[in-house]
Amino acid sequence: MTSPVGLHRVVEPAGVLPQAAWRVDNRPEIGANEVRIRVERLNLDAASYRQLREKHGGDGDAVRAEVLGIVEERGKMHNPVTGSGGMLIGVVEEVGPGSPLRLAVGDHVATLVSLTLTPLRITDGLKGWDGGSEQVPAEGHAILFARSIVAKLPEDLPAGLALAVLDVCGAPALTSRVVTDRKAAPGHAAGDTVAVLGGAGKSGSLALAAARRAGARRTVGIVPTDDEADRLRTAGLADEVAVADARDPVALAEAVTRALGKPADITVVCVDVPGCEHGAILATDEGGTVIFFSMATSFAAAALGAEGLAADVTMLVGNGYVPGHAEFALDLLRAEPAVRSLFEQRLRAD
Amino acid sequence: MTSPVGLHRVVEPAGVLPQAAWRVDNRPEIGANEVRIRVERLNLDAASYRQLREKHGGDGDAVRAEVLGIVEERGKMHNPVTGSGGMLIGVVEEVGPGSPLRLAVGDHVATLVSLTLTPLRITDGLKGWDGGSEQVPAEGHAILFARSIVAKLPEDLPAGLALAVLDVCGAPALTSRVVTDRKAAPGHAAGDTVAVLGGAGKSGSLALAAARRAGARRTVGIVPTDDEADRLRTAGLADEVAVADARDPVALAEAVTRALGKPADITVVCVDVPGCEHGAILATDEGGTVIFFSMATSFAAAALGAEGLAADVTMLVGNGYVPGHAEFALDLLRAEPAVRSLFEQRLRAD
Repeated sequence: MTSPVGLHRVVEPAGVLPQAAWRVDNRPEIGANEVRIRVERLNLDAASYRQLREKHGGDGDAVRAEVLGIVEERGKMHNPVTGSGGMLIGVVEEVGPGSPLRLAVGDHVATLVSLTLTPLRITDGLKGWDGGSEQVPAEGHAILFARSIVAKLPEDLPAGLALAVLDVCGAPALTSRVVTDRKAAPGHAAGDTVAVLGGAGKSGSLALAAARRAGARRTVGIVPTDDEADRLRTAGLADEVAVADARDPVALAEAVTRALGKPADITVVCVDVPGCEHGAILATDEGGTVIFFSMATSFAAAALGAEGLAADVTMLVGNGYVPGHAEFALDLLRAEPAVRSLFEQRLRAD
Repeated sequence: MTSPVGLHRVVEPAGVLPQAAWRVDNRPEIGANEVRIRVERLNLDAASYRQLREKHGGDGDAVRAEVLGIVEERGKMHNPVTGSGGMLIGVVEEVGPGSPLRLAVGDHVATLVSLTLTPLRITDGLKGWDGGSEQVPAEGHAILFARSIVAKLPEDLPAGLALAVLDVCGAPALTSRVVTDRKAAPGHAAGDTVAVLGGAGKSGSLALAAARRAGARRTVGIVPTDDEADRLRTAGLADEVAVADARDPVALAEAVTRALGKPADITVVCVDVPGCEHGAILATDEGGTVIFFSMATSFAAAALGAEGLAADVTMLVGNGYVPGHAEFALDLLRAEPAVRSLFEQRLRAD
C-alpha cells in the first residue's frame, strides 16, 4: 500500500512530506489507496494570486504562463514565493480499492487539502482562464492520498460558491472553537470581544458570523476602504465596522480600541497582505488571543513582535483543518443570508 | 514624550514598528522615556548565527564583517535572512527622566526584547570576537524604549550564563503555562505527555525541566546525535531520550511514538534549523498542541502542513514574552543542577 500521506509521490528532496517537496510525481496512475480527480476548476489562494498579479502588473497572460510553469516544474500549484496554493473542484475519476475516503466514481468534490501538496497535471494550457481571477477553469487531473480531506459538493449551492466557502472553512471553525473555549473559562461567561481584520472578505465574514454564533460579546470588522465598510455595515455581520490599514499598527490598534472600548480579547487576521502581525498584536488586550489565518503571516514578525511589545498574548497558527469544518462553514452560509450575499458579491467582482 | 514602542526611531519604511523597520535611528541622544546602555556583549540568536556561519563556510572574519555590515546598514542587529536578532548585556549609561523601567545608571542589565528592534551602534569593530561563537564581546551603545523589557543581571550567576538563560526564557515559561492550563482542563488531571525537539539545547533543556515541574505525565527529549543523547540522559531531565532528525517527519514521529507509547500531547520545537514543522505535527496526537519556539519556523509550512495531514492540533507561535519569564528561567537554572550543567557545557563548547 502506498503512503497515506503521499510520501511515495515526493520526487525531491527525498524524505520530506509532499507539502515540503520541491517537486512531486503527478502521474495519473493511482496507488491502491489513492483517488484520481478530473479537475474542473482551481481556486488559487488569495495571497498567492495577489503576489502573481502584482508581480506581473496585472498582465493576465503572464500570470497564466507562470501558473502553468509552476505546475509543470513542481507537479503541483505551489507558489514558491508565498508558499501557498489553494484548492480545486472536480469529478472523481478512479478510486483505489484501499482508499478510505468513501468516494465513488462520478462524485462532484472539492479538495480541502492545499494545492501545495496535491499532485496536479494541467492539460488544457488553462485556455479558459484570462489570468484575471483566483478562480481558474482547468482541465487535467489531481491525486488524493488516503489521508487527504475532501468534501462532496452540496447540491443546493452553486459550485463556485461552495468552493469559495470551502476554501476558507478552517477560519470560522477555529474562530468558533476559540470563542467557545474562552467563554467556558472561569470569569469569561459574558463572552469576549472579537476583532476581525478583513471582516468583509471571505474568511473574514465567515469568522465574524462564527464569532457571534459562538457567543462573542461584541464584534468589530476592520476593512481597508469605505466601500467595504458600507458593504459590511449593510450585511450587519459585525456590531461595529471601522476602516483602518491593518499594516499600520498604531492606526489599527486605535480603530479597534475605539470600536470596542478597549483592545480586543480575540483578534482574527483574515487579511491577505504581509505586515499585519504587529497591528494585530497591538490591537489585542493583555491575556488575549490572536489567530493568524493569512498565509502572508511571518512567523518571526509575530514572535518577535509580541516580545518587542511585551505583549502577553496567545498567538495561534490558523490550522486549515478542524473536524467538521466544511459542514460548519456551509451551514453558516446557508443560515446567514448576509454572508451569502457578501460571497456572491465577491464572486461577481472576481 | 517619545513613543513608548520606539516609533520615533523608525527611519524606513515609515509607519511601522521598529522590529519591522529596515533601518532605525541609533543615535546616542535619548528621549525623555528612553534609556541608553553601554554594550558589553551581544548574544546572537541561534538561527541567525547558524545562517551566517553556514553562509560563510565557518570563516569567522567574514561572519564578523557581515554582522558589522548589518548593524551599520540597519542600525540594529537584525539578520535579514532569518529575521531574527538576539539580545545583549551592558551597563546603564543614562536614564531619561520619564523612563518607567526603574533602572539606575550603573545597573548591569540584559535586554529581553530582541535585537531586531533595539537601536545599536558598535564602535570597536568587534575586535574582541573571532566570529566563531554566538557570544559577541562588543563596545558601543544600545537604546531601550519605555515599553522594552530588561532584567538586572543576578549577582549569583556569571554574566555569560545568565545571558544564555535569559535569551531563551520565553520557552520554559510558555511550556509551563501550556502544560498547567491543559492539566486544569476536565479529564486531563493525570497530565500530558511532552516531547521536546532539541531537548539537550538551551531552550530545550529549560522546556523539559519546566514541563516536568508543571506536572507533565511523561517527557521525551529528542536530540540529533548519540553524543547529545548521552548528555541528556546523564542530565536526567527527560523520562526518555531518543535520537532522530527533526526534519524527517516519519522518523521523528516514530521516535516520539516509540518513547511515549503514542504521539505526544504537547510537542515543543526548540530546534534552530528549518523544516521541522511537519515532523512536529505528525509527532503530536489529535487534540494536542505544538509550540514553535524556533525562529526558523515557517508559518505557511505549519499551517498547510497541519491541513495537509488532517491534523487537529493547536499550533502556538512561541511568544518570547510571558510575564515573569526571566525570574522563572533563572530559578529553574538555580534549582536544577542538570540544567545548569548542560548550559555550562554549551557555553564551554561555544
